[in-house]
This record gives sequence, C-alpha cells and structure tokens, in this order.
Amino acid sequence: MALLYKADPVRGEQWKALFAEHAPDIEWRAWPDIGDPADIAYLAAWLAPDDLEQTLPNLKVLFALSAGVDQLDLSRLPTTLPVVRLLDPGISRGMCEYACFSVLSLHRDMLRYRQQQSIGQWQARQLVPATKRRVGVMGLGLQAQHILSSLAPFGFTLSGWARSQHQIEGVECHAGMDQLPAFLARCDILLCVLPLTEHTEGILNRELFEQLPAGAALINMGRGGHLVEKDLLDALDSGQISAAVLDVLQQEPAAPDHPFWKHPNILLTPHIAAMTQPESAMAGLLDNIRRFERGEKMLGQVDRGQGY
Amino acid sequence: MALLYKADPVRGEQWKALFAEHAPDIEWRAWPDIGDPADIAYLAAWLAPDDLEQTLPNLKVLFALSAGVDQLDLSRLPTTLPVVRLLDPGISRGMCEYACFSVLSLHRDMLRYRQQQSIGQWQARQLVPATKRRVGVMGLGLQAQHILSSLAPFGFTLSGWARSQHQIEGVECHAGMDQLPAFLARCDILLCVLPLTEHTEGILNRELFEQLPAGAALINMGRGGHLVEKDLLDALDSGQISAAVLDVLQQEPAAPDHPFWKHPNILLTPHIAAMTQPESAMAGLLDNIRRFERGEKMLGQVDRGQGY
Repeated sequence: MALLYKADPVRGEQWKALFAEHAPDIEWRAWPDIGDPADIAYLAAWLAPDDLEQTLPNLKVLFALSAGVDQLDLSRLPTTLPVVRLLDPGISRGMCEYACFSVLSLHRDMLRYRQQQSIGQWQARQLVPATKRRVGVMGLGLQAQHILSSLAPFGFTLSGWARSQHQIEGVECHAGMDQLPAFLARCDILLCVLPLTEHTEGILNRELFEQLPAGAALINMGRGGHLVEKDLLDALDSGQISAAVLDVLQQEPAAPDHPFWKHPNILLTPHIAAMTQPESAMAGLLDNIRRFERGEKMLGQVDRGQGY
Repeated sequence: MALLYKADPVRGEQWKALFAEHAPDIEWRAWPDIGDPADIAYLAAWLAPDDLEQTLPNLKVLFALSAGVDQLDLSRLPTTLPVVRLLDPGISRGMCEYACFSVLSLHRDMLRYRQQQSIGQWQARQLVPATKRRVGVMGLGLQAQHILSSLAPFGFTLSGWARSQHQIEGVECHAGMDQLPAFLARCDILLCVLPLTEHTEGILNRELFEQLPAGAALINMGRGGHLVEKDLLDALDSGQISAAVLDVLQQEPAAPDHPFWKHPNILLTPHIAAMTQPESAMAGLLDNIRRFERGEKMLGQVDRGQGY
C-alpha cells in the first residue's frame, strides 16, 4: 500500500517527512521513482500522469494537491476513480488574507496612491465609509464563505452570487444567471473565487463589466480562465472598471510583454493568494485516506458532473 | 452662545449642516467671520488662533477636530481651558482599515511584488503563516486597541507596548522603557500609533531599529515626529528594516525631492489613514457639548500634564 506523490519536489520533502511521522504504514513514493506500479493505491498530485489506468493499475483514489481541480482533465480520468480536493485550512487563511488585502487596497484607493507616490504627489483622496462600499463575491463555496466572514468586521455591505441558492447571514445572496444582473448592479468591488468550469470560463467579460456600476473595481483570485483579458483592458480604458487586482492569468507565468505588467490600474501578483502548506494540509489529507480505508465518505470529493 | 469653527472649509459646510439639524440652539460661526468675539463659547478647531484669551474672551471649551492634539501648542493655551479630543468612530474605522491593509501588505510581501510587477518578474515568495508572524503595536490607547482587535482574526501573534501597564486579551502587553527591548525583540512587524509627546518624539530611531529582529518591517501611522527619517533610510539600506509603510512625515506635504517618494521598500501615503468625518463625529462632539452644559465630565478631555 503506497502513495505516489507527483508535484513540486521541495514541498514533496515536507510531505514525506509528515507521512513518515504521522502515517508510517503508508509507503511514500515520489514521481518519477514509482517502483512497482501495482503497489500504488493513492496518487497525490497537481497533474495526473497520462494513461492513468495503464500506469497505475491498482489506483484507488486521486488526491488533488489543490483546492480547485480545473487543472485536471477529468474526462480523461477513469470514471470510477474518486477525485478528492485538498481542504487545507492554510489555503483558506491565505485566501482570506489576500481578499482582505485586495478589497482594502481598492476600497482605500491604494493603486492611485501608488501612482501618486511614483510621481511625488501628496494628495488625499475622498474617503468612502466601508458601510457605503458594496463588495460582491462570485462563488459562494466554503472558500468564499470564509472570505465573506473575514470581510464582515470591516463593515462592508456584502453580497454574493453562485449558480445555486445559498443563505449566508449578513450577505445578500443571488443565484443563477437570472439574478446575475441584479447582483452586478450593486458591486462597487467585485471579487471572483468561482471554480473554473465550462459554465464560468470567460465569465468576467465585457458584457459582465457593463452591468457593474461605472468605476467599479475587480479582483480575480479564481482562475485566469475566468477573465477575458482584452475586455478588462478595454473596460479600464473606458473607466467602466477603475482598477483591478489580479492573482491569476490565462497564461502563467505572464509573458514579459503582457500589458498587465505596466498597467497603472492593475495590481498583478504571481498566483500567490494561497499556497498549499503541507503542515496545515496533512491532517485533512490523512483524514481522507483513513476515511477511505474505513469505507466512509471522504470530504471534498469532486462531483464529476459539476466539475468541482 | 456660539461655536466657532476653524478648520477645513469644505468639511466646515458639512459640520454646519449637521449643527443646523441636530443643535439649532448653538449658533454656528466659521473663521475668520467670528462676529462678536464675546459670543463664542466653544472653539472647534485644528489649530487655535494666537492670543486665545484676547481673541475669544468668553471661550469655555476647545474641541480639537482630531484624535491627537500634538498640533496644538498646549503651553500657549490658557491653563484652565478644557481641551477635548475628537472621538470619531469614523477615525477608528479608518485607522483599522489602514492598519490591516498595511500589516497584510508587509505580511504578504506586497512591496516586493510591486517591484516585481514593475520589472515584469513572475516569482512567488515564501509564504509565512500568520500565526508565525509577530505584530507589535506601540501605543495601547483606544485607537490601538481597536487596531489590535481588527488584526486578531487573521491569527497574527500580537503584542503591544505603552508607557503604562495594560491588559488586553490575546495581546502580550509590555510597559515602560524597561520592557521596550523585550517587546521590540519579538516584532516582525512594528506598528506605531503612539501619541506624539516629548517622551515619544523621535522614538523610531536607529537604536530602536537595532533592537528589532533583522529584516523587520515598520508601519508609522502615529505622527511624523515619531520617526527619525534618516535612521530609517540607513536601516533600509543595511536590511535591518526590510520595508516600511508610512502615512505621516516630519514635514507634510513631503518635499518633491524627499527620498521616501522613490524608495522601492517604502509605501508612502499622504496622511490618509483616517480622516475626520463630520457625519460620524457629530454625535460625539455634540454629546460632549451637552455634557459640558450639564456640568458633567466630557469624554476625551486632554490631560494637560501628559499631553494627550
């Protein structure tokens, strides 16, 4: 009974040490030194190898080493293979930090102050009370709910949107495409943490931007595939969008001549909102392995139909 | 019975409207149109006129339109004149927003990411969990306590220092010059919200920086007078301080050739952490006027000996 690790080798060493300490019964193997493929029951990976059925004939569970699984081509995986997302409280904390940082940055005009500093301009800008700042979150899963909880103490007026109906205290929740316009019309700051699926790809586009209040700001900490980058540039040019904080791009790393690098109204970070921390993620992963061994339901198992 | 307003004229119009609505019995006058000086019982001001005893012979209370009163030369005011600070919940909210923004910026290396963006570099940096990030606040008054409460949900390890002893749940409190070294030794991020007095002027200096852990970061949202600016530049050069977020300077506005403008490891904002909002400040100011009329203790009255 072995687990095969296939992801970043540096963090692999941390995982290996944690497994040695907390689960010595599970043999650790690191890609590409897989040993006898027939031993491998669990695959912990960012990307799955091709021809999974041939490569790992006795594979029982694929543990994605990420909160989202859009990087996996689910259609190419054996249909009966359980795929499980990583529920890492460290990821959740990182997402909340990044969300609060980026919402406060936009709320307090910090991209403008950055420009002012670069040209030596000392000028205060109008201060809007948080209660009058409407922050809308696209996506209302667990991650989004943690983000909304972390924003609440600042007093922002909060709303949310997802495909299905949610009820969250203190948050005006909207559901489905029918209610998307009403949601967008009240977002001074729009924050996207949607999963990337065929339904949400390219959802941050010209048509959506035009339904926001003029001068709204955008945060994308979902996936690069959510955003039509050309449409954002146009919306920034016209002023329909005043500023954007982006942690993800269509193509990462960004090309050296990508127009976002030098854009004064874009704050661009290299996909760092949250990173899996083996230390905080180990408990959840091991709990799921033990659940599987006992024949119990695992937490975070992907619905292959929904894609998340 | 009249109140004389002497500060920013734009906000003066907002104050005037609020007084007309909530305190029509108090006649409103705006500097320099003071009318008969003998009518003036209350002065609401950022700076007091010279020769206050001569100018306003019947003045009963000076209401500072700020949370701090260091801009007033208390020694030149009549000794029996009560001086009262402005307790504006809007200021407190603004300070918390700025504190969380700046702590999260430094915690998540956002000044480095700003530099990386400017040169088109896509590179993730090490992520430190908030629990391992030690944030220390200098000053433990009401403002500082609100700031500490707003930082607590992120899970930072919090400590504080003030001249006198405090007890705050979840915060390791240090008191007096004796305990300053022990406090400094455990500050990865040091945030100053001290009042500016003869005891605290220039307290953020070389000697203090040398007692911080190497590579610590600094936030000054107190007063410009707290910081010896040359010493900060030296500490940034040597790496003893890795980055600084500054909202206040010795001289404001900063001169066009001030070295902080172009410093890659300094984020400089034009004294905007919090601004008095007449809308949120009116209730507290009027409450103090009514307390004075009833002969009750006013809230936020300055201790002329302590200077705050």
